[in-house]
Amino acid sequence: MNQIKVFSPATVANVSCGYDAMGFALETLGDDMIFTKTNSKDVVISKIEGAILPYEANKNVAGVVALLMLKDSKANFGLDIQIFKNFKPGSGLGSSAASASGTAFAVNQLLGNKYSNLELTLFAMQGEVAACGSAIADNVAAAIYGGFILVKNYEPLDIVSIPTPTNLVATIIHPQIEIKTEDARKVVPTQIDLKTAITQWSNVGGLISGLHSNDFDLIGRSLVDLVAEPNRKKLIPHFDDVKQSAIAAGALGAGISGSGPSIFALSKNLKTAQKVETAMDAVYKNSGIDYSTYVSHISKTGTRIQ
Amino acid sequence: MNQIKVFSPATVANVSCGYDAMGFALETLGDDMIFTKTNSKDVVISKIEGAILPYEANKNVAGVVALLMLKDSKANFGLDIQIFKNFKPGSGLGSSAASASGTAFAVNQLLGNKYSNLELTLFAMQGEVAACGSAIADNVAAAIYGGFILVKNYEPLDIVSIPTPTNLVATIIHPQIEIKTEDARKVVPTQIDLKTAITQWSNVGGLISGLHSNDFDLIGRSLVDLVAEPNRKKLIPHFDDVKQSAIAAGALGAGISGSGPSIFALSKNLKTAQKVETAMDAVYKNSGIDYSTYVSHISKTGTRIQ
Repeated sequence: MNQIKVFSPATVANVSCGYDAMGFALETLGDDMIFTKTNSKDVVISKIEGAILPYEANKNVAGVVALLMLKDSKANFGLDIQIFKNFKPGSGLGSSAASASGTAFAVNQLLGNKYSNLELTLFAMQGEVAACGSAIADNVAAAIYGGFILVKNYEPLDIVSIPTPTNLVATIIHPQIEIKTEDARKVVPTQIDLKTAITQWSNVGGLISGLHSNDFDLIGRSLVDLVAEPNRKKLIPHFDDVKQSAIAAGALGAGISGSGPSIFALSKNLKTAQKVETAMDAVYKNSGIDYSTYVSHISKTGTRIQ
Repeated sequence: MNQIKVFSPATVANVSCGYDAMGFALETLGDDMIFTKTNSKDVVISKIEGAILPYEANKNVAGVVALLMLKDSKANFGLDIQIFKNFKPGSGLGSSAASASGTAFAVNQLLGNKYSNLELTLFAMQGEVAACGSAIADNVAAAIYGGFILVKNYEPLDIVSIPTPTNLVATIIHPQIEIKTEDARKVVPTQIDLKTAITQWSNVGGLISGLHSNDFDLIGRSLVDLVAEPNRKKLIPHFDDVKQSAIAAGALGAGISGSGPSIFALSKNLKTAQKVETAMDAVYKNSGIDYSTYVSHISKTGTRIQ
């Protein structure tokens, strides 16, 4: 195999109660990337469409992951990488994670499936370090494993795949305002009441149980975040309106995607998810803020060959 | 039906990571209780064996629950209650919860199954108020629902049954020292680091996922408590030795049962659980402290007719 075209999904991290611990991958929203083997042993980013990102390989998330994997595997080839971003960086939908995990997946294919998903996640996390300074796993693990994932532990990294109910559909609205991950982190308290923490882990337990047992009602009752959302939502115009409208339109629940500004909702079928999209759209259409909306099933496979 | 004999199980609350949110019921350790309809409309506790507890109905956990249910249901009968305690109050194994939930279950049978398990849990929680001043749900819900339960929410009460792997077996050691629930609560911090909380809810997620998927290894990796155990274990002599010995003998994990002093371990089969019992016994046998050990499967039914 000399060339591979891959799709790397957008991802929703946190999933309300699962702050810094859970994530899921979208089926139809994500980046396209083309990787071509070269004889030079270098990594060259030859095309980037859809976003302004560095072309220097050691400053580009995809380039960093590719260089690391070629070195680790002592590969006898180099790479030409073309990146087609289909959603914007800074959306809270794991843009850097899509580049990092798409690269990890593609390079592994070109290496003949040398690495496990856990190892690919560890490589992709180094792309997250390049993008935001932290080796966070939730978005990249969701992109690589697909479906819902739980980051059970960091040292050693322990990723648990959680079954995804087939009919579960996400609706996303991305208000095109800038929230830096750093700023979004600053507003989250470093200490919390034990009582709040207990409620949060009861909801994590409920969400994971609901996903395992296809209990949509339980999933909905568990999509509650007492830790990040009460603080972060102030950074997102009309958050409460969007959430309430989504739930009124039939969504099981809604919350902030990653560190925002995107807002996600989960619904029990496509038709409801589309109604939720209409409801979200109605809140934003006269807001004077640019925005995009998306409806997508949950991706069961994550990163995949196109 | 004029008389009913019931078994009400001992229960393990918290289950390490699931502090104040999870619990499970034991199959073979628990109280026996006999309820006989009377014409007097009073509740009389006519026998208590195995523990020193009040005979006045309005001061006895079983009496309190029975009085409440007879009043709520406008029953045209009274009750004679005989209580046979097979494990000691103050053990951390839900002694008051066994009396409360056994009563709720038995009275409901005599009323022709008028109430749901959720309603029975709410009645039994009033027994917990009588016993310890708080309407805690974890032990009583585990006793009434059986298996593993998650207290997803208190207001309104929301109990989630979690599937129990068939082969899972608990080993318990009860060192006969006194730890008051109140004292055990005092040593647990009221505020915790967000980082600690995230680890705790990742483990709750892992434990619930492991129970759903019969993943014993994941169950073991998730039996970690960073919140109560590091503080409470100081109240339990030889805790670290017991835990380490249990794990060395093959247990998936171990922790404090409820607010202690009992220590529980979970194993993937009966043979291992018996080895774990031997290992726990070896730690305590020359300690000069009286103790009991128990090996039991997880009760899938909870409170039951004998």
